[in-house]
Amino acid sequence: VIVRFSKDSGALRPSAIRRFASLLQDPSYFSFAGGAPNPLTFPSEALAEAAREAILTHRDVALQYGPTAGLPELRRATAQILYARGVVSSHPDRIVITTGSQQGLDLLARVLVDPGDVVAVESPAYVGGLAAFAARRAQFLAARRDADRLDVEELARKVRRARSEGRRVSVLYTIPNFQNPSGWTLSLAARRELLSAAAELDLLVLEDDPYAEIHFGEPPPAPLAALDQEGRVVHLGSFSKTLSAGLRCGFLLGAEEIVRKVELTKQAADLCSSMLDQSTLAIYLARNDYAAHLVGVRKFYAEQKAIFLTALREECPATVETSEPAGGLFTWGALPAGLDAEMLLDRLLAEEKVAYVPGRSFFVDENPDNGRWFRLTFAKEPPDRLEEGARRLGRFLARVAA
Amino acid sequence: VIVRFSKDSGALRPSAIRRFASLLQDPSYFSFAGGAPNPLTFPSEALAEAAREAILTHRDVALQYGPTAGLPELRRATAQILYARGVVSSHPDRIVITTGSQQGLDLLARVLVDPGDVVAVESPAYVGGLAAFAARRAQFLAARRDADRLDVEELARKVRRARSEGRRVSVLYTIPNFQNPSGWTLSLAARRELLSAAAELDLLVLEDDPYAEIHFGEPPPAPLAALDQEGRVVHLGSFSKTLSAGLRCGFLLGAEEIVRKVELTKQAADLCSSMLDQSTLAIYLARNDYAAHLVGVRKFYAEQKAIFLTALREECPATVETSEPAGGLFTWGALPAGLDAEMLLDRLLAEEKVAYVPGRSFFVDENPDNGRWFRLTFAKEPPDRLEEGARRLGRFLARVAA
Repeated sequence: VIVRFSKDSGALRPSAIRRFASLLQDPSYFSFAGGAPNPLTFPSEALAEAAREAILTHRDVALQYGPTAGLPELRRATAQILYARGVVSSHPDRIVITTGSQQGLDLLARVLVDPGDVVAVESPAYVGGLAAFAARRAQFLAARRDADRLDVEELARKVRRARSEGRRVSVLYTIPNFQNPSGWTLSLAARRELLSAAAELDLLVLEDDPYAEIHFGEPPPAPLAALDQEGRVVHLGSFSKTLSAGLRCGFLLGAEEIVRKVELTKQAADLCSSMLDQSTLAIYLARNDYAAHLVGVRKFYAEQKAIFLTALREECPATVETSEPAGGLFTWGALPAGLDAEMLLDRLLAEEKVAYVPGRSFFVDENPDNGRWFRLTFAKEPPDRLEEGARRLGRFLARVAA
Repeated sequence: VIVRFSKDSGALRPSAIRRFASLLQDPSYFSFAGGAPNPLTFPSEALAEAAREAILTHRDVALQYGPTAGLPELRRATAQILYARGVVSSHPDRIVITTGSQQGLDLLARVLVDPGDVVAVESPAYVGGLAAFAARRAQFLAARRDADRLDVEELARKVRRARSEGRRVSVLYTIPNFQNPSGWTLSLAARRELLSAAAELDLLVLEDDPYAEIHFGEPPPAPLAALDQEGRVVHLGSFSKTLSAGLRCGFLLGAEEIVRKVELTKQAADLCSSMLDQSTLAIYLARNDYAAHLVGVRKFYAEQKAIFLTALREECPATVETSEPAGGLFTWGALPAGLDAEMLLDRLLAEEKVAYVPGRSFFVDENPDNGRWFRLTFAKEPPDRLEEGARRLGRFLARVAA
């Protein structure tokens, strides 16, 4: 039997991280490569109790098919969380609960993007977001992101050029807070600039915000969805980083007509997300002090970050820069020009048993400079290994890049 | 902000059942319209215990991101279940766990179907399957299904005609056992006929088999995947009807190259399905006697079916036919020629507070005769209401169709 696959399926490639996933299972390696949160931060006792209560007390909900848009209690709780973060347009009817925010990205790509459309992204950009658009055979244009700003001039120039070539560009995808992979956060001024550029260019903004609650100091500036006056922003969030990644509950909030299209597409995609997950989270949120839990999560990752970056910078040569994230799970490193993180990885694994993610897959262009970058997470290793692994990495970098 | 939606998103319509979903929430109505299993059949105590154990004993698995293809333990258990049903090609590596089998259909549609392709289906066909293909802007051709056979001559004629018009036809979608909506089951001879027609026409066969375990007498004939010698069949199954629909765990088994493409598309679609759901089911299957549980499920629905059809047929005029399912959740009714189930539904709701699903949405063509059909489920109402509702429906049919 010869199978002829669809055009869309030809656009997907295994991710850079998966390529050495089996190595990352080996506990003798210091893994700064993954993207997952630390399960120590998950309130497992309370979740176990909530799951049990969901099944025994709400059997006909938790074990049964549910509404495609999500469990009403969880949509309400989510609406309140977003409202408290300044999104005054937040309303349960404008929320869809998704199987993680990855599904939100995928559904939005299906609803908003035709094959051959150009999607505007940041440079660097989150690979999972890129994959959702690539699965639609989208093409990309990228505007440079730096420590606190997106280059809106580059954005405007590239959008206009693409349109002058007859391409449709209608969506800008961004992670404003503690970005994956860079750890960078858009300033308030940069957010206003971005929204005003989006209005001028007539772009919908997909704001992917999974890390917002994990700030090490002050909360980040207001979400784009809070600054938006026009219904131009679709906001995506998740409980994956703060309560559990295995309970696959993300959400999106957007204009009514977008949300209804997303709901219809989700109905064909999976009927509904796990009702056990949704019921468990709704009960958890009703019975526990989520705000207090978040304080602990922030403290955990702030300490991880401090241990990691302190140890790394003690050994690391001045020629290698690493970002100083104000939240989230990642720091972003840059080797001196001419070095390539992907080419060095095999040596790093062999000599120090340390892994990072080479940065090239976070870029949509072929700039040779992309090879300098690498992503590190300080989320997962325990403090002693975090420190030891950071020192090893630092010494390695001193050998190859000093 | 004016949103321009994708072409794909324009192909979807709210389902016929959703249109009166709010009525179905009203307990004063006798609902034979839904498609859900009865939560009384779910082993809630054991699942609650399994969920609790999953979170407390396997926190780093159940609460964390997991492999896109599914939890290894659940893939293994699923492989064994399929092997025991005669699918000797069954192997964990060829299985992907999905968010219900609906996601399996959606992923297969994304991997195998391009916009404008023609998908071969049964007439009638399951609406959820049709929706997954419609979301890809597929078109359809349909071959008539009857009580024990698919009309393979009609299939061959239509496939050849479509191809002669330059259309690509590469997939046949079928529910061989206790079909939704008809309750009909393909005989063993019909299965062989179907596979040989598929080979001759070079079609992949997507075998959707969520009801196989719910047989009222003898098990149904061997699955197509068990009869297949060529890797031509992709088999979809689910725990939704036997253990829980709210734990969204379906699975698909197919040729290696198809399964890898599905996995890649799923990675972009949602990274992974609920790890709590998967861990809970894996623990349930390891700790409990699933086979014994299934005996109880079969007995439950066999009794429901008997109560319902006995009461219905006592009142129903001879002019109205209803199928006699050997398993599953549905019977399929036909009004005399000239009557239209959709047009009668408002009267039925008003006069008897009874609901069915009008059959038209299960057909892909515009044959006026389609309007005669309606789908009934005997899964949900308790015995007294099942009987009372069936009598009401029968009396109504006697008034309008005698």
